[in-house]
Amino acid sequence: MMDVILKRRSVRKYRPDKIDEEVVREILKAGFCAPSARNLRPWRFVVVDDREKLDKIAVGCPNAAMLKSAPAAVIVCGNIDESPDYWADDCAAATQNILLAATYFELGSCWCAAYPKSARMEPLCEILSLPQNIKPYSIVAMGKADEERAATDRFEESKVKRNGW
Amino acid sequence: MMDVILKRRSVRKYRPDKIDEEVVREILKAGFCAPSARNLRPWRFVVVDDREKLDKIAVGCPNAAMLKSAPAAVIVCGNIDESPDYWADDCAAATQNILLAATYFELGSCWCAAYPKSARMEPLCEILSLPQNIKPYSIVAMGKADEERAATDRFEESKVKRNGW
Repeated sequence: MMDVILKRRSVRKYRPDKIDEEVVREILKAGFCAPSARNLRPWRFVVVDDREKLDKIAVGCPNAAMLKSAPAAVIVCGNIDESPDYWADDCAAATQNILLAATYFELGSCWCAAYPKSARMEPLCEILSLPQNIKPYSIVAMGKADEERAATDRFEESKVKRNGW
Repeated sequence: MMDVILKRRSVRKYRPDKIDEEVVREILKAGFCAPSARNLRPWRFVVVDDREKLDKIAVGCPNAAMLKSAPAAVIVCGNIDESPDYWADDCAAATQNILLAATYFELGSCWCAAYPKSARMEPLCEILSLPQNIKPYSIVAMGKADEERAATDRFEESKVKRNGW
């Protein structure tokens, strides 16, 4: 488990190989297992594997330009009516679980922010025809990596404090 | 790995056993391995294992009342100067990694929100003497669980969409 956490890196170049449906389902299962405030689970997951839609998102959200090469993405969205104060935090936890599950299944992945910038959220709302109360939180690109990214030790002693500052 | 993701549950009753220092370090290492926007890594981790401080936090932040029984907590904080737009999202990813690492080391854990409610953030700023630019994001209670919480399948078909709504 720790090896997966340490191995996860942001991948921005992908091979076109389609992701197995069973693997997609396992990855979503990980998203569903995230904690959420008051266990309200306000998330929604939009799996995108339509080439045209992926290309549209890559253009509409330039920070997700790697979708031009990725065979799939999960757009993690939240129902803002179900959890107005914490939907974004819950979606963040789900996003992280999805990244780790993808890593476990030997897929590269990258967390591209949608929320909170409206210039990134609006194109997604349009391309995916999201209802008014469903807001896109993140775009998770996924696919076989076409670049090598080594695990690194990221511990920074100066950022740890004990019992106060 | 998937078993750890599926096994993680929020634990609210703890045994007083102290957590091994090496385990604390491994858990923090997981936090440091979270992704962050532009790789800015704005997080700070305050480990609290002082009984008096834990009790003070439990009173100041009633949603973290379980710290009365927990032997330790990690307060995940962000430096808002380093990443004004995304420090909270980055701290969420780090928090989730910490929860999973704790689960892996057979510890119970619970994500208690601090951000965005000032009534929860202010007591933490005071109890931990946080500088002005360091904001508490979450309180992660940790320790040997004193309750059984089974893994459950949380997949909800109705929350998954394909290529749009």
